[in-house]
Amino acid sequence: MKVKVINGASLPNIPWEEKPANCKDVVWRFSQNPVIQRDHLEVSNSIFNSAVVPFEGGFAGVFRVDDKARSMELHAGFSKDGLNWNISESRIEFVKTDPTLQDFQYGYDPRVCWIEDRFYVTWCNAYGWKPTIGCAYTYDFKTFYQIENAFLPFNRNGVLFPRKIGGNFMMLSRPSDSGHTPFGDIYISQSPDMTYWGKHRHVMSPSMGWESTKIGAGPIPIETDRGWLIFYHGVLTSCNGYVYSFSAALLDKDEPWKVLKRGREYLISPQKDYECVGDVPNVTFPCANLVDADTGRIAIYYGCADTCTSLCFTTVDDVIDWLDTHSQV
Amino acid sequence: MKVKVINGASLPNIPWEEKPANCKDVVWRFSQNPVIQRDHLEVSNSIFNSAVVPFEGGFAGVFRVDDKARSMELHAGFSKDGLNWNISESRIEFVKTDPTLQDFQYGYDPRVCWIEDRFYVTWCNAYGWKPTIGCAYTYDFKTFYQIENAFLPFNRNGVLFPRKIGGNFMMLSRPSDSGHTPFGDIYISQSPDMTYWGKHRHVMSPSMGWESTKIGAGPIPIETDRGWLIFYHGVLTSCNGYVYSFSAALLDKDEPWKVLKRGREYLISPQKDYECVGDVPNVTFPCANLVDADTGRIAIYYGCADTCTSLCFTTVDDVIDWLDTHSQV
Amino acid sequence: MKVKVINGASLPNIPWEEKPANCKDVVWRFSQNPVIQRDHLEVSNSIFNSAVVPFEGGFAGVFRVDDKARSMELHAGFSKDGLNWNISESRIEFVKTDPTLQDFQYGYDPRVCWIEDRFYVTWCNAYGWKPTIGCAYTYDFKTFYQIENAFLPFNRNGVLFPRKIGGNFMMLSRPSDSGHTPFGDIYISQSPDMTYWGKHRHVMSPSMGWESTKIGAGPIPIETDRGWLIFYHGVLTSCNGYVYSFSAALLDKDEPWKVLKRGREYLISPQKDYECVGDVPNVTFPCANLVDADTGRIAIYYGCADTCTSLCFTTVDDVIDWLDTHSQV
Amino acid sequence: MKVKVINGASLPNIPWEEKPANCKDVVWRFSQNPVIQRDHLEVSNSIFNSAVVPFEGGFAGVFRVDDKARSMELHAGFSKDGLNWNISESRIEFVKTDPTLQDFQYGYDPRVCWIEDRFYVTWCNAYGWKPTIGCAYTYDFKTFYQIENAFLPFNRNGVLFPRKIGGNFMMLSRPSDSGHTPFGDIYISQSPDMTYWGKHRHVMSPSMGWESTKIGAGPIPIETDRGWLIFYHGVLTSCNGYVYSFSAALLDKDEPWKVLKRGREYLISPQKDYECVGDVPNVTFPCANLVDADTGRIAIYYGCADTCTSLCFTTVDDVIDWLDTHSQV
Amino acid sequence: MKVKVINGASLPNIPWEEKPANCKDVVWRFSQNPVIQRDHLEVSNSIFNSAVVPFEGGFAGVFRVDDKARSMELHAGFSKDGLNWNISESRIEFVKTDPTLQDFQYGYDPRVCWIEDRFYVTWCNAYGWKPTIGCAYTYDFKTFYQIENAFLPFNRNGVLFPRKIGGNFMMLSRPSDSGHTPFGDIYISQSPDMTYWGKHRHVMSPSMGWESTKIGAGPIPIETDRGWLIFYHGVLTSCNGYVYSFSAALLDKDEPWKVLKRGREYLISPQKDYECVGDVPNVTFPCANLVDADTGRIAIYYGCADTCTSLCFTTVDDVIDWLDTHSQV
Amino acid sequence: MKVKVINGASLPNIPWEEKPANCKDVVWRFSQNPVIQRDHLEVSNSIFNSAVVPFEGGFAGVFRVDDKARSMELHAGFSKDGLNWNISESRIEFVKTDPTLQDFQYGYDPRVCWIEDRFYVTWCNAYGWKPTIGCAYTYDFKTFYQIENAFLPFNRNGVLFPRKIGGNFMMLSRPSDSGHTPFGDIYISQSPDMTYWGKHRHVMSPSMGWESTKIGAGPIPIETDRGWLIFYHGVLTSCNGYVYSFSAALLDKDEPWKVLKRGREYLISPQKDYECVGDVPNVTFPCANLVDADTGRIAIYYGCADTCTSLCFTTVDDVIDWLDTHSQV
Repeated sequence: MKVKVINGASLPNIPWEEKPANCKDVVWRFSQNPVIQRDHLEVSNSIFNSAVVPFEGGFAGVFRVDDKARSMELHAGFSKDGLNWNISESRIEFVKTDPTLQDFQYGYDPRVCWIEDRFYVTWCNAYGWKPTIGCAYTYDFKTFYQIENAFLPFNRNGVLFPRKIGGNFMMLSRPSDSGHTPFGDIYISQSPDMTYWGKHRHVMSPSMGWESTKIGAGPIPIETDRGWLIFYHGVLTSCNGYVYSFSAALLDKDEPWKVLKRGREYLISPQKDYECVGDVPNVTFPCANLVDADTGRIAIYYGCADTCTSLCFTTVDDVIDWLDTHSQV
Repeated sequence: MKVKVINGASLPNIPWEEKPANCKDVVWRFSQNPVIQRDHLEVSNSIFNSAVVPFEGGFAGVFRVDDKARSMELHAGFSKDGLNWNISESRIEFVKTDPTLQDFQYGYDPRVCWIEDRFYVTWCNAYGWKPTIGCAYTYDFKTFYQIENAFLPFNRNGVLFPRKIGGNFMMLSRPSDSGHTPFGDIYISQSPDMTYWGKHRHVMSPSMGWESTKIGAGPIPIETDRGWLIFYHGVLTSCNGYVYSFSAALLDKDEPWKVLKRGREYLISPQKDYECVGDVPNVTFPCANLVDADTGRIAIYYGCADTCTSLCFTTVDDVIDWLDTHSQV
Repeated sequence: MKVKVINGASLPNIPWEEKPANCKDVVWRFSQNPVIQRDHLEVSNSIFNSAVVPFEGGFAGVFRVDDKARSMELHAGFSKDGLNWNISESRIEFVKTDPTLQDFQYGYDPRVCWIEDRFYVTWCNAYGWKPTIGCAYTYDFKTFYQIENAFLPFNRNGVLFPRKIGGNFMMLSRPSDSGHTPFGDIYISQSPDMTYWGKHRHVMSPSMGWESTKIGAGPIPIETDRGWLIFYHGVLTSCNGYVYSFSAALLDKDEPWKVLKRGREYLISPQKDYECVGDVPNVTFPCANLVDADTGRIAIYYGCADTCTSLCFTTVDDVIDWLDTHSQV
Repeated sequence: MKVKVINGASLPNIPWEEKPANCKDVVWRFSQNPVIQRDHLEVSNSIFNSAVVPFEGGFAGVFRVDDKARSMELHAGFSKDGLNWNISESRIEFVKTDPTLQDFQYGYDPRVCWIEDRFYVTWCNAYGWKPTIGCAYTYDFKTFYQIENAFLPFNRNGVLFPRKIGGNFMMLSRPSDSGHTPFGDIYISQSPDMTYWGKHRHVMSPSMGWESTKIGAGPIPIETDRGWLIFYHGVLTSCNGYVYSFSAALLDKDEPWKVLKRGREYLISPQKDYECVGDVPNVTFPCANLVDADTGRIAIYYGCADTCTSLCFTTVDDVIDWLDTHSQV
Repeated sequence: MKVKVINGASLPNIPWEEKPANCKDVVWRFSQNPVIQRDHLEVSNSIFNSAVVPFEGGFAGVFRVDDKARSMELHAGFSKDGLNWNISESRIEFVKTDPTLQDFQYGYDPRVCWIEDRFYVTWCNAYGWKPTIGCAYTYDFKTFYQIENAFLPFNRNGVLFPRKIGGNFMMLSRPSDSGHTPFGDIYISQSPDMTYWGKHRHVMSPSMGWESTKIGAGPIPIETDRGWLIFYHGVLTSCNGYVYSFSAALLDKDEPWKVLKRGREYLISPQKDYECVGDVPNVTFPCANLVDADTGRIAIYYGCADTCTSLCFTTVDDVIDWLDTHSQV
Repeated sequence: MKVKVINGASLPNIPWEEKPANCKDVVWRFSQNPVIQRDHLEVSNSIFNSAVVPFEGGFAGVFRVDDKARSMELHAGFSKDGLNWNISESRIEFVKTDPTLQDFQYGYDPRVCWIEDRFYVTWCNAYGWKPTIGCAYTYDFKTFYQIENAFLPFNRNGVLFPRKIGGNFMMLSRPSDSGHTPFGDIYISQSPDMTYWGKHRHVMSPSMGWESTKIGAGPIPIETDRGWLIFYHGVLTSCNGYVYSFSAALLDKDEPWKVLKRGREYLISPQKDYECVGDVPNVTFPCANLVDADTGRIAIYYGCADTCTSLCFTTVDDVIDWLDTHSQV
């Protein structure tokens, strides 16, 4: 390993498949995709854009489950190998830490981030049926304690950093509007206490063709000695709709609103049938990554066509080598 | 049978396939779908959203056939088993009952309903190239007599009840606009004579996610001792277009603008390749149902991706049981 | 008089002002415009697009009054001279002829038409907050009996003919959509009983620049020996919004869906400050005409800038002479 | 005075004009409107939507000045009587309290609020050319210290409360999108330190006709023994554009996200030529109010047609009496 | 005169009014505006955006006349003083120089330019009802010879240079779309023969607030020893529509696609009632300038609110001095 | 052969596959489609809408290659059989024939046409990031000399005729706007020298359903003794986006703006998975045809789903026979 993972843990049981022999891609798909099918649950219309973390020797996760009314819900799940999942048929019932917090209306695109002593969950949370960033924490993926929404509506894709920086919690997010937003930059915000947020700074705007309409943060940033490695999605607007691809960038370790490297090209775009055909054609949308600090192996969970969940693989070295030669910054 | 079909006929030769052993769905697809392919006719680009009724021991139908100029036409057809169809290569040439009726311009999404002594056909009919509800009747599916359009433009999805209620013909419809209408409620109208219509009443508005954009009536209502059982489609607007699913509702027998039960979830949504891929991706659109009054078996014909025609099955008891436990009313 | 008014009454006290000496216009404005100011009532934000008829030796009317919540209401009023109006501070409370009729939500752009034995009022009536044609009748402008809406939503500008034709009531209307509709043709519909409507026929579509976006019927048609004389509004879409002007046409006496003459040019367009400045800039919108059958004098009430009400004048001969030389049919 | 102004100061020199004799309005216009003309400065295209406070025996203000490039700038000004203003020809040059704050791009619709020891200025501030709530403070209206933006883009109409509640600064705001936003609710947010904001709560959504498109907070809330009295603007979308009117509401003293009273009708809508004609026709937009705690007299500064600045008057008792009888809550 | 007018003629009878004593504007309005009223002709709805040149000791012009059908026509006119105009009641009937040229459909916003031996007229010409640049020439303003359209649709604001440059005719234009185009840059094209055009080069894009939506060339460029002085319009999109202002720029003499100076601010924006109120509120649109080469006096004809025609004045020195200090290049 | 190919060459090695036995289609697909896969190059996201010509006994081509940043580039390639292609991994670097020509920004949808002594390439070329018709020539597909853009923006689908007509180069094109243009006609323009273009004439507008939104020229016209045979694409707008099909027409030999025959129906529409699923679902877009003059065999290269490249076949006689019986002209 050329690049060192910081504050990372050994994860020898990371779901993994070696790169195929003649594959020239930096990120390669799991041959058994999708790993979670749309009808995995009796109640599910689709399961995608979901968050997975190492938990008690295996894995736990918070899953976006759209039910057959197409209501967007969050369900918890567990797995020994990260591939075969036992997901609850019932949605998470959040325990409100403040009785004046609003009842759950809908939630989607969760992320899960371990910080200090607990797992924080962030997701796109309806407040008065308007999307903003919901926040909660759990110790066991059984009881989830909901805290204050981070921001005013309208916001999506809130992603926490796995440790405080300069004494503050840090969150990436993508301010939006009330619909299928045709614009969107990534910003970063700070909080001393996960209740009040400020010192908002701009991080990245849309850029090259594949990400020319809008961009949004994806999995939890990976700390390396080169900076924070992030995967993020970008959207292109074709005459027949949005196309969601994703790539990688490297942010400054101490001032993470500074972009050190940023991939000019996508790493994964919708090309497989399970990515092109489904409830929303042409979507690949990463929400979680597992990292083995010992080897730099990375497994990325990404939603496909807003219908099912897949896995792809890379390594820290592979991605940063590629960023070093394919950055548009 | 817990629920009794009223005014229904025995239909022992209904197209039918038992529910697969481990299937938990209320409505299940025919294993040989699609039953009518897009190139079934030499002239056809696609055949879908079509109407089928029992006729002379077999079945007859009026089919939406888009030709290769993508002009929308109506063709008549016959079948012994409801599966193998002999559809005319030529469109229906309506006989005008009034010489001042406009010449046929285009027609689509037909329904066929037996009332008293004849089959009535209703469809989305161009009047001055603007859509409204066209009406005709036939005794033999060879000669079709066109009568007055039911309404002013703009309207779609006109569906008759199979008998008069309170002495009046009753028709569900979905007022719309001049384009790919992004809204739509179901209304009911009355007529003493199939010429003049009035006493318009609101029935249902869009609701949960899967039907949040617009809704429209589907096959001819099935009379039961619990009320009128209807299947209706609903549309969700994703960032990449409309998704057409369908579900069921139960209307009051005497005041059918009153909704007694209404499925919170869809029964069928686009999930199979032939429903997801085609001229309009992600469409399942029911236009006809056959019912065997003896057994309560129901066969639903539904258009797939605006391209081909498929079948799915259920029973009156299954649907009403489900409505009793899954209603949002 | 070259042209004879049919079925018309003497109206010697018609509000009137002779054409100014050097005026070359076919229709000329009243020098005291506007005749009803926006703050005529304590509760009114604006009073415009209103209907006036001869009544008991003087005049009565139904007025569009937008209150200061900008809720659209209908108020009754009386006048001795057609210029000074005593309008009720309270909106009309309709008596429902059928208890299942919906409660009044909003109403606007009324027309009043004497047919046989009573005054019928038609207006744009909210049904489930969606616009369609509301209908009522009154004998005294004190008690108003609401009957069935004529059509399904969405419709506006419903205008009755002052007598039955071929045994049927006849109504012009303008099907629309749910918003600030950017299209619109005039149709005619028939009813044997003011409850059920049918035999819908197309009358006119948008045409030349001033009426290139949409058109709608205006005052009650005037019967002449040349046919039905109507004034109708047309809308042009400039880069800064709609411009409402109006002109005249002549419809066939027995088949009024046949247009005999139609003015190529507008007769009145927004040019005075009270027509150009107000809640909706650049609107002149006629809703009523008084006719003196003896002399052919016509007084037209028209709304200005959706804010106040004005008068303009012409004669049957003047308009039909002009139509004979300026028709685009 | 029935209602008592809390924490208010005597302001005997408040600009004032008694209500005209026969005026029935709750709020009445100044007879010398507009008080600041569009060409008040050599550099100005227009001066409107501006903030005024008592200052050193006279008045000071922060003014929205659009220059002749139509760039939106903030200028400081002083006046002895609140009517005749000496406004700087140069825009405010903010002193950054943190060197990493972005340079000023554009700013508009300022509010000024005295809290504890200084005047806080909030305005719609461009951050990366995207609107959010900028914050600064001044002691003397000569030097302005810019602090952190309160929120992520997109936001407008940030209005502070004149004292902390529950130990926190409180700010009303109106989340929006990147353009001429066609929606908008008022929310309230809290901050312990004017840097980090959270505990966002919904206050009011659009409602009746005059405010059916969007609403936004206006001048600084006035504390009374009945609660916080606020004026706020509402927007109606006519077929020819937005119409901005304003009204009043009463918020709970301790939980100001609770609306106690809310005017069903507007108090001022665009009716005068200087409100109807200008760079944006049909706008009345209040940004500041002066209150004399001794008498309850209120002078409201409001922008007209996005072009000039006017004054209107009322009293605390008049408004709250009216709210007591005209509330839609 | 500091700046010298090149290839210009003496025009001692230029319409003129000295700058008012205390006026600080670079361009000042004529006190008798508008000089041509909307009802100047019996057939006219409006007369604006018109072209005027010196002709036989007096002046001639081509006028945009919208008739009362709101059809856009071109009329010729003559004047001794440039203020009192004798405009033909009939539109120009072009003589086709090629029989296959299309018949005239509509035309607007003409410009007239003397080059070498004749007056060329360019205008927005409908070809198949789609706008492009029509071209014609005349010797006497009585007979107009139509030649080939310069470009394919969609184009507007074609403006010729008054002499060939590098042996080629030069034309500024503004490619557009089929509607009320919300974008637009100025380009320059070359032609050896007024039939074939090429070597298209970009000149200017929209910029500061007043011209942030689109820009377009105005009167014929004035040759000076500093370069080509042009006036051009710019459009800002407010929430209530477009606002058309105009300013000046200086182009390189030999490579006129190079912009040497460009006004950061507008010189005239809609502020007078006749500019703010009319068929299209808030438009000032210059189409012609007269120049007295001896004194550098300039008279600009500009359309107001798409309704009437006005005059404003400046001098070459005044404008270029201002450009030297107010340029954003 | 009934119809004779004029000025055509023998092409015995044309890629070819006989029509399947029971196929009734006029144009039939290659059984090995797609012939060029999206990942044919290491750098390619997709390869489609590309141009192929006979070259030195084999074939050469210019290919639209979208790279993995989704930047649109042009690459040259060679093939012995027209099926197996050796395409350069690097984009074409054009040699500018005039140093003031703009640097390449992006290019797509190339066509290649042999005229007299060289191959001309035309494509949709970004000028200031706005699309217009770029032009270049090559002798060897190694060095490409860029000449002037043919037109001002906005234009697409520029297609040259393979010889001068009346002494002029002739080009079909489709004026458009700056986005996913929802309209579009085919025009023809003339040039004496490939630098200056004029004498623009309208050829065809959108028509029947399959081509009701917009149309555009496709491969190089084929000269026959019946006229110019062209294939062109047409677009239908479904509720879920554009559908691109293609058909044929016959243009007059000497006045090619005259349409002699025009297919009422499409010849190919998106029906195969590789045409329905990909970066832009439901696209079949022809850019090149090879013709064997001896036999009239035609091989058409067409882009599929904006993702890959396919082949289909027909003969001159087949198409013209079909046009003779299926024309809507």
